[in-house]
Order: sequence, then C-alpha cells, then structure tokens
Amino acid sequence: MTTLRLFQPEDWRSVWQILEPIFRAGETYPYSPNITEAEARVVWIDVPAATFVAVGDRGEVLGTYYLKPNQSELGAHVANCGYVVGEAARGRGVASTMCEHSQAEAVARGFKAMQYNLVISTNESAVKLWQRHGFEIVGTLPKAFRHTKLGYVDAHVMYKWLDMAIVK
Amino acid sequence: MTTLRLFQPEDWRSVWQILEPIFRAGETYPYSPNITEAEARVVWIDVPAATFVAVGDRGEVLGTYYLKPNQSELGAHVANCGYVVGEAARGRGVASTMCEHSQAEAVARGFKAMQYNLVISTNESAVKLWQRHGFEIVGTLPKAFRHTKLGYVDAHVMYKWLDMAIVK
Repeated sequence: MTTLRLFQPEDWRSVWQILEPIFRAGETYPYSPNITEAEARVVWIDVPAATFVAVGDRGEVLGTYYLKPNQSELGAHVANCGYVVGEAARGRGVASTMCEHSQAEAVARGFKAMQYNLVISTNESAVKLWQRHGFEIVGTLPKAFRHTKLGYVDAHVMYKWLDMAIVK
Repeated sequence: MTTLRLFQPEDWRSVWQILEPIFRAGETYPYSPNITEAEARVVWIDVPAATFVAVGDRGEVLGTYYLKPNQSELGAHVANCGYVVGEAARGRGVASTMCEHSQAEAVARGFKAMQYNLVISTNESAVKLWQRHGFEIVGTLPKAFRHTKLGYVDAHVMYKWLDMAIVK
C-alpha cells in the first residue's frame, strides 16, 4: 500500500536519491542535468508551499511531489505540482496515487485549478496518465524543451479545473 | 521618437510610476494589487535577466519591459517578457516598439523562442497586438486569472519561435 504524508527533513536523503537520476537524465524536468543537491532542495522543498512523499509498507520512500501556486496573487488559485516516482517503484500506480492526493490537497488548500506548465511530449506515459486524471492539453509549446537525447521537443501545457468533488 | 535602452537605477522612480497603477488595477498582471514598491522592484528589476525602458525625445520614460528565461536550463532557450506602457504614452506604438525590441534582444542573447504565460483574455488590445507581432495563442487557461473587476477570466498562453530574421 502507498501512503502519502508531508515531507520531513529526515526524508531528504531518500527524496534526493529519487530526484537525482531523473534530473540528471534531463528528459522530463527542465532543471540542469548538473543541478547540485542544494539547488534541488531549493526547488523541490524550499520554494513550494508543500512537499509530500509516497511511502510503502516498510516506510520506504517510493515517490515525491511538490505543490505550489503557479502564479502570483491573481493567478494563485491555480496550483502547480511536480511528481517523481523512484525507479524501483515504477508500475505500481504511485504516480496516480500522488496525482489524486495532490488534487485533494490542492482543493483542501483552497486552490481552484491545477496546471502543469511543461509536460514533455515525449514523456507519453505521463501525458496519458494526467489525461486519465482529467487534465487536458490546453496547448502545445513547439520545441520548448531541450531534451538531452532528442534535442528540441514539444511540451504541453495541461490544466484541470478542480471545482468538483474529489473521490479519494 | 521612442528609444529603448537598459534600465538604470535612477530610472526606478519613473518605472514605478508606470507600473504602480497597472499593478494596483489588477486587470492585466497577476501581482497583488497591494504589492509594495520593494516587491515590485524585485519582480521587475531583480529577478529578470534584463529590464529596459522606452524613452521619449525629452528622455521621459514611456514604458518598460523585462526579459528573462521562462524556465530552468532545459527550457531556458524560451524567453519570457512583460511590458507596461505609461498611461500618458498610450496609443503611440510604444508597446509595439518594445515588443520588437524584446524579440531582437532575445535573439541577440541566444533565446530561440518567446512565451507569454498569462495574457488575460479580457485585455483584447494586448492579445491582438501580440498576434500582429507573430505570437500565437497556443492554449487558453480557463478562469486562470482573478480579475479585480470581472472575477475569474480566461488567460492565454502565447508563443513565438524566434528563429528568423528580425526586422528592427
């Protein structure tokens, strides 16, 4: 079973182990593949309003996501999240669980909508997953992401209005 | 004639006089209508890679824009700009001049594209202006902006690939 809880400082080592290979790969997040651990902690922990971890039965960290307002005050009713699942925990529905949790959490915190600003088009499983969770591709940014292996690729802006009952 | 040059610290008083009524109105930018002068200086001057002023024949500041990368490293080839024209200088083509200048400046700095993340749909003159300058509405975010007078209104994501000769 996967449980979601707020990030605690002692989780950082596990969270960084999950984030590092994803950021280094440069295929799904825009951060520099040479990002330092300290810089990663700023973007994933310090800047967001909240960061969560998905933990397994033995308390092991399976994945993590952050939640923050996507814009300043007059756009701050739209949330933004980023999700990463550890390589060892793929295929177990952890991303889905985090996506559902993040929507409920966003609603609980008063957000009205959620936006993903840069869903890399080549990350097809993510695009499909967010679509299954009710997110729509509202637009596609031509060549907006410089993929480390594929060069310039398109990225999608995905969006969902959350003004509805969330089934947890 | 309108001339564009880099912002200098002594321009701040004039720039803030231009920004303040626009930010206070809360109709086109997401910053809090209660933003302080110090906060405005951070978002308009400190955070961006560069800020420019448009000046008239007598050296008076007519408008201002900022230029910055829209995303981290792997999305940092896409620029983002924000433009404000002083109320006294409306209808003189200052926004057009700044838009053209910003594209040339972005290309000169190595950017490949430009993105506006939150063009408020009710700001129709701005939408049309950016379209005339080659920007496309790549997507519309439903109710993503809380307009101080109109409530939740749609916002557009606009985008232009700059890989072309820019006629100045």
